[in-house]
Amino acid sequence: MSTTKVLLVGATGETGGSIANGLLEAGTFEVYALIRPRSVAKPALTALQDRGVKVRQCDMTASEEELLEALKDIDVVISTVGPADQLEQLPLAKAAKKAGVKRFVPCGFIPVTPPGGVMWLRDQVSRDRVTFPGDCRTKEIVYNHIKQLWLPYTIIDVGWWYQFSYPRLASGKIDYAMTMSNDEIIGDGNTPSALTDLRDIGHYVAKIISDERTLNKMVFAYDVVLTQNEIYDMLEKISGEQIERKHVSAEEILDRVASARASSETYPYDPAKYVPRYIAEYQLSWGIRGDNKPEYAKYLGYLTSKELYPDFKPSNFEDYLKHVFSGSAKGIYTDRIKRFE
Amino acid sequence: MSTTKVLLVGATGETGGSIANGLLEAGTFEVYALIRPRSVAKPALTALQDRGVKVRQCDMTASEEELLEALKDIDVVISTVGPADQLEQLPLAKAAKKAGVKRFVPCGFIPVTPPGGVMWLRDQVSRDRVTFPGDCRTKEIVYNHIKQLWLPYTIIDVGWWYQFSYPRLASGKIDYAMTMSNDEIIGDGNTPSALTDLRDIGHYVAKIISDERTLNKMVFAYDVVLTQNEIYDMLEKISGEQIERKHVSAEEILDRVASARASSETYPYDPAKYVPRYIAEYQLSWGIRGDNKPEYAKYLGYLTSKELYPDFKPSNFEDYLKHVFSGSAKGIYTDRIKRFE
Repeated sequence: MSTTKVLLVGATGETGGSIANGLLEAGTFEVYALIRPRSVAKPALTALQDRGVKVRQCDMTASEEELLEALKDIDVVISTVGPADQLEQLPLAKAAKKAGVKRFVPCGFIPVTPPGGVMWLRDQVSRDRVTFPGDCRTKEIVYNHIKQLWLPYTIIDVGWWYQFSYPRLASGKIDYAMTMSNDEIIGDGNTPSALTDLRDIGHYVAKIISDERTLNKMVFAYDVVLTQNEIYDMLEKISGEQIERKHVSAEEILDRVASARASSETYPYDPAKYVPRYIAEYQLSWGIRGDNKPEYAKYLGYLTSKELYPDFKPSNFEDYLKHVFSGSAKGIYTDRIKRFE
Repeated sequence: MSTTKVLLVGATGETGGSIANGLLEAGTFEVYALIRPRSVAKPALTALQDRGVKVRQCDMTASEEELLEALKDIDVVISTVGPADQLEQLPLAKAAKKAGVKRFVPCGFIPVTPPGGVMWLRDQVSRDRVTFPGDCRTKEIVYNHIKQLWLPYTIIDVGWWYQFSYPRLASGKIDYAMTMSNDEIIGDGNTPSALTDLRDIGHYVAKIISDERTLNKMVFAYDVVLTQNEIYDMLEKISGEQIERKHVSAEEILDRVASARASSETYPYDPAKYVPRYIAEYQLSWGIRGDNKPEYAKYLGYLTSKELYPDFKPSNFEDYLKHVFSGSAKGIYTDRIKRFE
């Protein structure tokens, strides 16, 4: 049997990078990166090429003929595109159906949240218009498009990243690995929420795309379920520092969501408007509603990584925190943060 | 163990009537009909009461307190509301969650079609506004609402009704049992499409709501899969008459869909505009796209009645046609047809 040929979209991003690594480590895949012509010189790409990743140059907005050329002989497509680029997957999915792709993994890769407007990142329907520009962020339109094509698919969602999960220490000792300050506890801090080490995403993806049981299904790939209080306790124990517990009430989160929604709809392209909306809606979904947990995922129809792969040893969260405290963890989104500076 | 208490919404309609009958025949349910105060004198309701159905008077638009009263001690809610009343289920579902209802069956009961705008009856999103009045028809909003409530549910869809499936005979012999003329063959007439005898819907529902395997799942309950040519052949054989085969091309159907969509969006409350849209979109979905078949249902995540209940003997389609030809079948929607005359 020949190796499975995987075309990865977004290989130089955080999620895409984890997936590229997971596929390469597994050793049973031929990995192709779909790269925009203007991005072929990225250092992150060169590093992947050094490890054997082949490049197919093509814009997501290219003609169907060009997309078909980029999809030639590909068995599996995995897409990790930016929040604002979700709808760019529509022509790719159509071409993938034509090309006979055996499995299309659209860009899910977010925590569990129900469809229908809880989170913009999942399937925002704006308050008064479908053609609202921000609607290009809706994953649900992509999922429905795939289903209408009768294209074999797997939707993979993941826990909140380990890398985003811990609060700052007053000593500043772990500031080097902080992407955001995380200094708020939502509600009483006892809502369980699933977590996934960003570095494990690729490990799960390598298993999932080789597994017939996951075809035309949603899969929730998570490492562990913890509450915020448990995370704070753990980091206090590791660091010997006390961390202030700044509680934010459900009412306050709902107020933030309402005002972030209003201003992001007025300025849909302004990250200063939509990033606060993402954050507020995440807090609403996992912190207040309690969506991001395996029981709810199963209710929504997901298979879970724990049930599919009981023998897989995920990254241990406490070990990860120790690693962060030791000073040797890797910060994430560092390129993006620089860009906004 | 006490009998299961079922509250049925729309018990005097065609689908609701089949369900009421199926539940009563099964003998293991206590059946309650949710009835608008203004409809308590309907003869169809009296007939159900004679068979043991109890009435709970309440408007779907009543206060939550009144809805909770109507839902008192109810185990299962089954909703069959009119196409334009889908969103009336939203407060009912919310109250059902509060009341601890163990299973909510929202109004599905249509043939298989994917979400995302193929059919208005399924989940129309209008071309330019979500708040378009016709959007009250969207089942998908109801389904998402249920999921956001984490309310136990089962969505049940069914094949195209036997009662709508056969063409007219030139002799006029079966005109008495025709609801619409059905004198068109979509495309080449060889697209397989699932059929369900309206009278079997209740038989399936009685099984499905007693079945743990169907909790939080979609179920496709169909009797048989046939093409239009097979139906015409069968009726020709039974009647001894030749039936003209008037083919309508895919292009013609697409044109009809486009123009029916445009005019129904201008006049969303006018049945003369939206009924042609339903018909054109059905023809698109089952006739051209070929959506209404078990293989596609399974791809979309449905369980099927054939796999769940292999021993169930559905109504035989050929026998049903003989019954129609013999002159003793019952016409459907006769009250509605009279109303439009």
